[in-house]
Amino acid sequence: MSEVFAVRRNHLRDRCAATGSEAALVSRPANVRYLAGGAPPGAVLLLGGAGGGDDVLLCPRTPGGDPADGRPDESLRLTVLSTPGGDPAVAAADLLAAAGTGSLAVEENHLTVARHRAMGSVAPRLRLDGLAGAVEQQRIIKDEEEISCLRTAAEIADQALGELLESILVGRTERHLALELERRLVDHGADGPAFATSVGTGPNSGRGKHRPSDRRVEEGDFLSVCLGANYRGYRCEVGRTFVIGTAPADWQIELYDLVFAAQRAGREALAPGTACRDVDRAARQVVDAAGHAEALAETTGHGVGLEIDEDPQLAPAAMGKLDACVPVTVEPGVHLPGRGGVRIDDTLVVRPEADGGPELLTITTKELLAL
Amino acid sequence: MSEVFAVRRNHLRDRCAATGSEAALVSRPANVRYLAGGAPPGAVLLLGGAGGGDDVLLCPRTPGGDPADGRPDESLRLTVLSTPGGDPAVAAADLLAAAGTGSLAVEENHLTVARHRAMGSVAPRLRLDGLAGAVEQQRIIKDEEEISCLRTAAEIADQALGELLESILVGRTERHLALELERRLVDHGADGPAFATSVGTGPNSGRGKHRPSDRRVEEGDFLSVCLGANYRGYRCEVGRTFVIGTAPADWQIELYDLVFAAQRAGREALAPGTACRDVDRAARQVVDAAGHAEALAETTGHGVGLEIDEDPQLAPAAMGKLDACVPVTVEPGVHLPGRGGVRIDDTLVVRPEADGGPELLTITTKELLAL
Repeated sequence: MSEVFAVRRNHLRDRCAATGSEAALVSRPANVRYLAGGAPPGAVLLLGGAGGGDDVLLCPRTPGGDPADGRPDESLRLTVLSTPGGDPAVAAADLLAAAGTGSLAVEENHLTVARHRAMGSVAPRLRLDGLAGAVEQQRIIKDEEEISCLRTAAEIADQALGELLESILVGRTERHLALELERRLVDHGADGPAFATSVGTGPNSGRGKHRPSDRRVEEGDFLSVCLGANYRGYRCEVGRTFVIGTAPADWQIELYDLVFAAQRAGREALAPGTACRDVDRAARQVVDAAGHAEALAETTGHGVGLEIDEDPQLAPAAMGKLDACVPVTVEPGVHLPGRGGVRIDDTLVVRPEADGGPELLTITTKELLAL
Repeated sequence: MSEVFAVRRNHLRDRCAATGSEAALVSRPANVRYLAGGAPPGAVLLLGGAGGGDDVLLCPRTPGGDPADGRPDESLRLTVLSTPGGDPAVAAADLLAAAGTGSLAVEENHLTVARHRAMGSVAPRLRLDGLAGAVEQQRIIKDEEEISCLRTAAEIADQALGELLESILVGRTERHLALELERRLVDHGADGPAFATSVGTGPNSGRGKHRPSDRRVEEGDFLSVCLGANYRGYRCEVGRTFVIGTAPADWQIELYDLVFAAQRAGREALAPGTACRDVDRAARQVVDAAGHAEALAETTGHGVGLEIDEDPQLAPAAMGKLDACVPVTVEPGVHLPGRGGVRIDDTLVVRPEADGGPELLTITTKELLAL
């Protein structure tokens, strides 16, 4: 297993060399975990540059640590700072200055101005370059090991959701349903929820990222649920919308069919080589054509992995094309203020036609169930 | 209520004027909430400088938002960006450039290098100064409104913990106990947990920030629990350690008495005008004298409020003195590798002797209960 991380680090080291940086400092936790196998709280990963040029995982001097952040690759040198409250990024700059290293690429989209300045002041001769999202780019295409973690995460989320559907829902609050879902995720082996579980009923249904309230489920409500499991650091997402009790009203069926058609169009557009914006357009134009353009969020999907929202983005202005082995969500939703709405959200892996096309990880039914 | 926020903003505006900045940009969510009454995700608060010099809350163009982040003060101008994916901090710099403002103080301990640079490139003539933790300083002393939120948060945490103690514990996992505590927090009116609830059993007991595992509670275990409620954004903390089943072993009684004595010494040292490091020393020297110096964390307590860990820090190297109306935790803990340990954690408000001394918010008993 530990070679995987060494290979990833070599890849990044080569990229830095190509852009003229002698060393790289990775501070964003998900990136540290991707390259080091684990990310102790506050740890930073220094690639090359320090005496002998071997990699070092620098950790702050704090007891504890979080198993869910994984076990760092044993082949990696691990240094715990001796000074309480010291900043590992500053310690890294210090190391490089002592080693006479000339340049260091840092994550400018993560490092704060204050930390960056502190690094500059301990190592005035060290040129600080930008890493420009290099690790995020590296993370986009997943290996089969990563995909199998996502597959397990999706199975766990499907199980938790399936059990909820078998229970009595009327009269329970959004908050309690969300908490029960999160408990079930853990019951089924998740390290925790992948993100704050969202449960929306009635007028709250179909709202993206709706924070569960004390509203209780009522007969005739739309109920929309969005949850995901964190399994070994990998995070998936599944979202479904149901009707409560009696048969759905005409407007509910109409709205559901619309969002379902948009979501299917998005799923069917997933293929290696397809532009991300074209996948977004496929889903978006269905909703636009029905006159609900304004109701749609800015993205209709996004990558998932060690973070729940990572590249690629499926949006009108998105650049770039999809590759095989890229897991993404397809999650259009339409919310009608005051009435409620529908959101359907799957996690899929982009696969070539020859391999059967997109692999659906979240298999909970998408027919409009009346519960 | 809305005057409170206006007064806080005026105070910060005066401080900026004094340090020679024409305007201030607050981006750290807890600081935005403190000054604006609410913090929509990604919103930044611009104080002065923009045309007419009135304050503006700039929000990214994303649907949704989070009620738990509070309702922004209605007297505040609220602007939602028109461009999808736009950065409100950059939009603020743009506004100021248009208004011909000369200087802006920003939160360098929160703003990333990339955002800071983007601001500089849209407003090359705008001088970017540092706000140097001005809002964090302002937040240290709480008003009675804030303290009553903390009092309610503490009551909720005490209730959740009290109910757990009445239930059967043997055979249940750390994870399930933690999830049940978080459900009870919400049952009793919390917006959510103040931080990830920690439950440690047997060898895991007494570890600071221990992440709940699948270990089950056994007879004779130490069980240590640390939880807190988030009530209207204000976060408290309570930690207790118990023995399971039979009478505690001698080493357990000895260790418990030691940590209890250290924690009491810390609590009793709380007074307006006392140096933060002296409060830490009061607790620390009890543990040191028993030869467990190494087992102690770097801090024995910290401020609480809109964040669970804020200034002041109670640590050997901490600067500054305590004031009245400053809520802090006192939470020494000793963990013996392989055996387990004890952690006792209270949230108190510093009060003058004349007002009866420190106000204990978390009133769950601290005697060593055998459950």
